Amino acid sequence: MSATRKPGRNFLFVPGPTNIPDRVLRAMHIAMEDHRSSDFPKLTLPLYERLKKIFKTKEGQVVIFPSSGTGAWEAALTNTLASGNKVLIARFGQFSHLWGELAKRHGLDVIVQDEEWGTGANPERIEEALRADKGHEIKGVLVVHNETATGVTSNVAAVRRAMDAAKHPALLYVDGVSSIGSIDFRFDDWGVDLADQIKANATGYFPYTPALPMLHGLREALNIIDEEGLENVFARHHHLASGARAAVEAWGLKLCAKEPKWHSDTVTAIMVPAGFNGADVIDVAYRRYNLALGAGLSQVAGKLFRVGHLGDLNELMLLGAIAGAEMAMRDTGIEVELGSGVAAAQAEFRDGMQAKIKQVAAE
Amino acid sequence: MSATRKPGRNFLFVPGPTNIPDRVLRAMHIAMEDHRSSDFPKLTLPLYERLKKIFKTKEGQVVIFPSSGTGAWEAALTNTLASGNKVLIARFGQFSHLWGELAKRHGLDVIVQDEEWGTGANPERIEEALRADKGHEIKGVLVVHNETATGVTSNVAAVRRAMDAAKHPALLYVDGVSSIGSIDFRFDDWGVDLADQIKANATGYFPYTPALPMLHGLREALNIIDEEGLENVFARHHHLASGARAAVEAWGLKLCAKEPKWHSDTVTAIMVPAGFNGADVIDVAYRRYNLALGAGLSQVAGKLFRVGHLGDLNELMLLGAIAGAEMAMRDTGIEVELGSGVAAAQAEFRDGMQAKIKQVAAE
Amino acid sequence: MSATRKPGRNFLFVPGPTNIPDRVLRAMHIAMEDHRSSDFPKLTLPLYERLKKIFKTKEGQVVIFPSSGTGAWEAALTNTLASGNKVLIARFGQFSHLWGELAKRHGLDVIVQDEEWGTGANPERIEEALRADKGHEIKGVLVVHNETATGVTSNVAAVRRAMDAAKHPALLYVDGVSSIGSIDFRFDDWGVDLADQIKANATGYFPYTPALPMLHGLREALNIIDEEGLENVFARHHHLASGARAAVEAWGLKLCAKEPKWHSDTVTAIMVPAGFNGADVIDVAYRRYNLALGAGLSQVAGKLFRVGHLGDLNELMLLGAIAGAEMAMRDTGIEVELGSGVAAAQAEFRDGMQAKIKQVAAE
Amino acid sequence: MSATRKPGRNFLFVPGPTNIPDRVLRAMHIAMEDHRSSDFPKLTLPLYERLKKIFKTKEGQVVIFPSSGTGAWEAALTNTLASGNKVLIARFGQFSHLWGELAKRHGLDVIVQDEEWGTGANPERIEEALRADKGHEIKGVLVVHNETATGVTSNVAAVRRAMDAAKHPALLYVDGVSSIGSIDFRFDDWGVDLADQIKANATGYFPYTPALPMLHGLREALNIIDEEGLENVFARHHHLASGARAAVEAWGLKLCAKEPKWHSDTVTAIMVPAGFNGADVIDVAYRRYNLALGAGLSQVAGKLFRVGHLGDLNELMLLGAIAGAEMAMRDTGIEVELGSGVAAAQAEFRDGMQAKIKQVAAE
Repeated sequence: MSATRKPGRNFLFVPGPTNIPDRVLRAMHIAMEDHRSSDFPKLTLPLYERLKKIFKTKEGQVVIFPSSGTGAWEAALTNTLASGNKVLIARFGQFSHLWGELAKRHGLDVIVQDEEWGTGANPERIEEALRADKGHEIKGVLVVHNETATGVTSNVAAVRRAMDAAKHPALLYVDGVSSIGSIDFRFDDWGVDLADQIKANATGYFPYTPALPMLHGLREALNIIDEEGLENVFARHHHLASGARAAVEAWGLKLCAKEPKWHSDTVTAIMVPAGFNGADVIDVAYRRYNLALGAGLSQVAGKLFRVGHLGDLNELMLLGAIAGAEMAMRDTGIEVELGSGVAAAQAEFRDGMQAKIKQVAAE
Repeated sequence: MSATRKPGRNFLFVPGPTNIPDRVLRAMHIAMEDHRSSDFPKLTLPLYERLKKIFKTKEGQVVIFPSSGTGAWEAALTNTLASGNKVLIARFGQFSHLWGELAKRHGLDVIVQDEEWGTGANPERIEEALRADKGHEIKGVLVVHNETATGVTSNVAAVRRAMDAAKHPALLYVDGVSSIGSIDFRFDDWGVDLADQIKANATGYFPYTPALPMLHGLREALNIIDEEGLENVFARHHHLASGARAAVEAWGLKLCAKEPKWHSDTVTAIMVPAGFNGADVIDVAYRRYNLALGAGLSQVAGKLFRVGHLGDLNELMLLGAIAGAEMAMRDTGIEVELGSGVAAAQAEFRDGMQAKIKQVAAE
Repeated sequence: MSATRKPGRNFLFVPGPTNIPDRVLRAMHIAMEDHRSSDFPKLTLPLYERLKKIFKTKEGQVVIFPSSGTGAWEAALTNTLASGNKVLIARFGQFSHLWGELAKRHGLDVIVQDEEWGTGANPERIEEALRADKGHEIKGVLVVHNETATGVTSNVAAVRRAMDAAKHPALLYVDGVSSIGSIDFRFDDWGVDLADQIKANATGYFPYTPALPMLHGLREALNIIDEEGLENVFARHHHLASGARAAVEAWGLKLCAKEPKWHSDTVTAIMVPAGFNGADVIDVAYRRYNLALGAGLSQVAGKLFRVGHLGDLNELMLLGAIAGAEMAMRDTGIEVELGSGVAAAQAEFRDGMQAKIKQVAAE
Repeated sequence: MSATRKPGRNFLFVPGPTNIPDRVLRAMHIAMEDHRSSDFPKLTLPLYERLKKIFKTKEGQVVIFPSSGTGAWEAALTNTLASGNKVLIARFGQFSHLWGELAKRHGLDVIVQDEEWGTGANPERIEEALRADKGHEIKGVLVVHNETATGVTSNVAAVRRAMDAAKHPALLYVDGVSSIGSIDFRFDDWGVDLADQIKANATGYFPYTPALPMLHGLREALNIIDEEGLENVFARHHHLASGARAAVEAWGLKLCAKEPKWHSDTVTAIMVPAGFNGADVIDVAYRRYNLALGAGLSQVAGKLFRVGHLGDLNELMLLGAIAGAEMAMRDTGIEVELGSGVAAAQAEFRDGMQAKIKQVAAE
């Protein structure tokens, strides 16, 4: 029980950082090189083209930017808006809240549309607000595609349709940090204007010293996605998320996401019963079982724990995590039946597998 | 379902190769160096001292030898025995069988004591054979400490006592490939004469070009064992094995090991019901669930599958593997209840954890 | 001569990115982990304390910031100054030029003190300007400690003394990207106010998702500096730079740095004779000899080439690079004698080594 | 000067272990896997085919064998010869000596043909000995292709012709440890019978647990050889060796190899002047300049030092080593002119480069 040495692998089930494939780590284990050499663009130029496919854009420009997601939020706003500009943000979780706060600090005039936590962006209300803005003072609409604080995915296509219906010229800013590459994202179809992407690095060089290992890791990550197939990646995330949700149902617990239409395929936020504290579950899971779960934040602090299920993940890894969550809940007094969530997820996984086998056989 | 890209980690549950800690891989990721340099012994000499603790010997000599375990079998015999010498071997599984065959090929006169597969070395019969050998023609007694083919651990201490009781000068050769560092092994207490170890590399250099990355990996592996504590490593292997055996009981299946006294803490061999083939379970587990299980060999081919649970392993990894075995058995028609083995193992693990917490609290 | 496969190691002699020790790469090769776990601050908190020693500060706050150096420039200015504030910058190379431009884009009122390229910040002129600023409108003085474009190190202590003499309250901003950890930097002694460092991460957590492998790499880099000793690191950089300068002298060429007092110990900028283009030397060196040299920028484009000699470097690596530069110069028609620069650097290195041996013997 | 921390890269110039490309290390940094899985032969089977090209054989069988070269010597002899069989070995250095000794220990009747150290196998004497052996009692002829102790390469094709001329059925055993992949080796053309290769692993599986990281490393090494082109690899080794020999000539020193026809392209053994000890040069080079050189062995102990120049190596790495050897010689009192060997090697390298450029232009 010592912290010094925890045998075996850590089960990392937070909605980020995610499990990174060994191949990507290997690709990043590389000697430094001259980022001004004549060979360098051979590394970088293809990355932009390949990233466009992940974003599902033909004309959009992808920017590779060495910072945290928070830094990308900042760069997207400060490079396209001026102090005093109005922006509209739908707020329904900690991360949509923080983006709005960051916008305020940069001097933007932020109109917050609060939605109940456990739901997502409301296209009808957005359309209404834009129609009311006759003078087109609103310069941007900000949407967090996948709110990891509550396990909710918003309908970006519907937001775009609302903006079009209102015939409003505001730009659509989408945070896709925990969705792109895991949940379907369609930059062009959805008419997204900014999703961490602004201008081309047309020559293959950078205006600063880039983080070289990251570029090599990115290339290998793109290789891996290509090999699996982007649509297969999405299908796998949905398959795994279905298992997680089946487990929650078997436990007799509730999701934070209010309705199936809000279900996120990359993170599941699980309400603990009244009288219990989600933080205790997380603490026991980590110390006793080497399982990292996500905490409830702000409004839902203590009320839930979160299972991230995105990245390089398969059924047995998730079943191990579900089994660990069961033990941790029992250790903190929550009366779930051992093995019940596992069994429900196993059934879900076997159904999915059978369907897949039939489909392959039919092809 | 394509073989090209299997997302997530492979669940490696064969009794070797085992899950290797990332730290050991990192330590092996090292530039070549001059194995004749004046610095080199600083790397190697401490390894011999530290290895003695793992073997629990004060006076014994540990040899670091660049080959497979098969090569070490050969080296141990050919360097201490002459063609025509008699050796006695207890045979109760594929690996004790193969060691005997190798001895024959090297011209040794091999007396085989067959024991039922699922049991281990029989000290009484060994004592009897040695007492009958008045002329002391038997030069060696060969024992596989942990027979991975059947999941059986033999009592080496009892074999030593039997040899002493017979007042016989034969050397005791022990294969500890799948036990040393996982199951308690006591070179000195048990009077083992040869366990892959023959002479000192007193200067820190080698009579050949050694496998350098392996030496660095060995050093880091020793660090890891030190940090966890060797006795804790043994306790963890027992704890995990208890969970595996609880799952088998919950499934209503039988172990290959006939009695608890033969239970191996590093591998569990599970009999499949009549009419089913263990190889099918293994095949489905690997292709559908990215789970590697061990096969039945020779006498028990098709009759069982094996779960290796040794090395860098924890509860959730093993629970994932148990869940995977359940799904694979169901997929091949074996009627185990989904989640039942997981629940039994979880209960076992929680009991062990509670006992540990009480013990720590009491200290 | 194909670009596909260049055998052997690339000789990386640009003033950044630098040769990174294998140990740091290994430390970065690590599975992702939960940056909100209870164990996480055990990783991060000691880093801040250890970094203070590198910056030679007791009370200063070090910030770990996931971006390029350009991003750190931006963060330092935007978090401490308001649009319209006046700043004074000494400009004597491409990087001091770029920092000033960045300040302008952020709405700062930038007073540029141009110095001849090949010299550095002029404390007398800075003092004069500050004395003239009776109203204390200048809020910051910006100094690039080591201008890699010209191989010039400025005297930051003298700038501080000038500011104190002028009794001016402006903050002193120092860019130490290519000096800290290689050339002596004394945050406290020199009264630096901002050197990429603003506030504490007192809890060990981050307000964003940090770049985890970088933190592990940073820790190992600090270990390496500790083992060598920070002052020994500085001495080694000086020793290597002396060899590089001796080679230039033997070639009969001139440095860009006008006088010894401007000599940088991390990068040497070498003027090519009239009629030759430094870019040709760099091109040939890279394509034929796998040697990466730095280019002349802006004012000095084509007029020089640069040898970076910082980071994980020793005498023989640098001698290989000097030999490569000799061949590349000859290939482009510059008449340096093969082996002449190498011989001069060897003599310098042997002298340094003898002095060190005597010193060690005397201790 | 402390041994604890030597900054920069070690210059590894012994004739093995050699500099291993980072790509190979990365490929070896891999999680363990089941060596009995249905996927495993996809890794192994292509390796055998690709290795045949390196050995230049169509029908020969390559064996992948987890041991040192010494172990391969042993395996080659013990698996094809019986105790008491006669073998003929040409002895002209420490490694040909050791192979003969090993053969004796295995009970073979070894006929030693001593040649002067600095020369190699003498086809005429071998033919003579075989012709004299009317009863065909000699079962094998043993030749070390590249004797690293003296930097001598023998003419294996001539030995084969000698055996054919004598119409003798003995098998030809060739040790290619330090030649195959660096110096041209033609298994089929030369009628080699055994060169570490005995039988096929036709299924892709092993009769023992193989060293998995080594297999992955082997695959990447083959990729690298393919990319460079095997003939280009040989040409590069010759080009580098020519530079090393030019340096020795410029120093006014002698090679151990008596005539150009014995020159090895992978290792150069350099005689130190009378009154000096090669071991001192090696000691100083290692401690002061982080340069690993090879020692004189047995007959030539102290009389020479060796520079290995094989593996992943380029001109600048070798020039750094030559510069280091110059300094180390001077430090031990040997009067070579600093930079003289470097200049000679540079001239050789530039000539080679010019020839290559002309050749590419002409194509």
